Amino acid sequence: MVGPSRFMNLLSCFELGIIDALRETPGMTAAQLGEAAGVKPDAVEQLLHLLVKENFVAHDEASGGYTLAALDGIAEADLQRVLAFMNLIKVTTLRQLFYLTESVRTGTVVGLKEIYGFDGDLYGAVGEHRDLRESWSTLMDVVTARIDPWFFDNIDIPSGAQVLDLAGNTGLGAINTYKRKASPGLRVTTFDLPEKEAECLENFRTHGVAEHCSFIGGDAFTEIPRGFDAVLIKHFLNMFDRDEVFTILHGVNKALDVGGRVHILVPVYTENLKDSYTVDYYPTFFLGCATGQGGPQKVSTYRRWLEECGFAVTETITQDPADLPPDVIPVQAVVSAEKVA
Amino acid sequence: MVGPSRFMNLLSCFELGIIDALRETPGMTAAQLGEAAGVKPDAVEQLLHLLVKENFVAHDEASGGYTLAALDGIAEADLQRVLAFMNLIKVTTLRQLFYLTESVRTGTVVGLKEIYGFDGDLYGAVGEHRDLRESWSTLMDVVTARIDPWFFDNIDIPSGAQVLDLAGNTGLGAINTYKRKASPGLRVTTFDLPEKEAECLENFRTHGVAEHCSFIGGDAFTEIPRGFDAVLIKHFLNMFDRDEVFTILHGVNKALDVGGRVHILVPVYTENLKDSYTVDYYPTFFLGCATGQGGPQKVSTYRRWLEECGFAVTETITQDPADLPPDVIPVQAVVSAEKVA
Repeated sequence: MVGPSRFMNLLSCFELGIIDALRETPGMTAAQLGEAAGVKPDAVEQLLHLLVKENFVAHDEASGGYTLAALDGIAEADLQRVLAFMNLIKVTTLRQLFYLTESVRTGTVVGLKEIYGFDGDLYGAVGEHRDLRESWSTLMDVVTARIDPWFFDNIDIPSGAQVLDLAGNTGLGAINTYKRKASPGLRVTTFDLPEKEAECLENFRTHGVAEHCSFIGGDAFTEIPRGFDAVLIKHFLNMFDRDEVFTILHGVNKALDVGGRVHILVPVYTENLKDSYTVDYYPTFFLGCATGQGGPQKVSTYRRWLEECGFAVTETITQDPADLPPDVIPVQAVVSAEKVA
Repeated sequence: MVGPSRFMNLLSCFELGIIDALRETPGMTAAQLGEAAGVKPDAVEQLLHLLVKENFVAHDEASGGYTLAALDGIAEADLQRVLAFMNLIKVTTLRQLFYLTESVRTGTVVGLKEIYGFDGDLYGAVGEHRDLRESWSTLMDVVTARIDPWFFDNIDIPSGAQVLDLAGNTGLGAINTYKRKASPGLRVTTFDLPEKEAECLENFRTHGVAEHCSFIGGDAFTEIPRGFDAVLIKHFLNMFDRDEVFTILHGVNKALDVGGRVHILVPVYTENLKDSYTVDYYPTFFLGCATGQGGPQKVSTYRRWLEECGFAVTETITQDPADLPPDVIPVQAVVSAEKVA
């Protein structure tokens, strides 16, 4: 019940600069912190109660001074990653979740409509609303930097392969694929809605891969281009319900020759739900804040779905929650499969 | 970090009727629950993951059926109390907390301005906005029914006393005081803003106490009426910062004769912050959602403040968190004091 208040109490202490002030000058009192942050000392005292309770901050009753406790030992990079995610939750989730029940009933993101007057999903809304975009892209940079190397380390792209990056947006996935898997004859094609073409081709030029990368405009729900040896589907299937996932996977299957490969990268629920926080956040994020449908699945579900769509799973690699920093919410998996006759 | 999403995930399962459906018909599948709730089975499955993780609900993989687990054993009255509080948090807190930092900076409830276009505090806003009022008054009925008897059991009102109920709103406190403490000559006077008078007097008549209760219009920050043996201050001091609390207590002290009593009822932070959830919720509730200032204090703080304002504390009684149901967020205390020469 106290989840929303605990969340914003902690984040607000960062937003007000109270934590930075204590890092610079340990032992500041509520009066001094209030002056530094431009707020009443009474409010500083109120907000720091929770942080004292949680041992994030220590309070010396005699002097009235506060010092960083558990928050003192956190590396800057770890802190920035946590704060980027907390900001994402604040901006894209906190208010929107008020409308969760209505979003589930309608299969649309009612919060975006009510708060921003926006009809559509979060990925469309970030194009029009700067606060959403800044919060979203800051986090995506953090996530991509961590996940992309892991993804490419765990998939096999044969020398000279023709690769399709499905729903590849403006080409970053294709560029990374080429750079990390370069081989003579390797060609990577971004497949996404036609309006992405200009920016995508510009990105290929900027990154010096225009010779090896190309763009095809189209819709993954209608028809997927043929002539590729491998299809990458990164962070896409989890945005849709089962029927939509099946439409996409059937389409990919139809487009590939027997023996053709598909590699999917998805956030997943661990088989034992108790093992990770993915399930604490992602159902409501997708249903109430992002797409009004979808959400991660267990790896076993994605395996079954791939098999039901004409594939044989060749490999699944799931992150071990124990290897992740404790603040990382989504556990990711790569599932690779081959079209069977 | 996942506090807001966990909160709304659970509440939404109740709002959608999924929990009621499972209580009536254990073993329903996601498809059946989706039909009952009017939502896609995919969304039911996503929302129930967290409840399975937390053992609120059990899931049988073989049949696909869900049954209530921990949620099965909860008495109806307990469940209604929890849901009333969750609804209050959703309606008065969840979206408003987005603006917590700005509220703290300005000392105003920015969320009420942004979401409702309302300038003022929550207690004013409930008068104009039905959704806030319904959520608020439902909870207040639950809280009052639990706290008022406890308060009156723990204060001593001498026979025939003249009692002032400070900030007594529309008379409910005076009515309860008279009914629970009736004695020959006992007279209880509600003191609040003049615009409350008509409704207050009407309430006295309806409850048959018009002979023993009266109303005085005024402002607790300006001048408090004289001629009373005891002043009750219920759920009021916690709405203000220290300076404002001192203005009120100095005023009460000035209005009383030596030996006159004051009895305050306040939610409090336990002396050891780890002992209760009051501190997890109330700083942000008052700062970001209710008044833009204030918040509970420790009993030791209220004792010290009373002494600094010319009182000797005669008794303090604090609820033991161990005696409260585990969902009860505020721990309450009664502090009684006597004006000293």
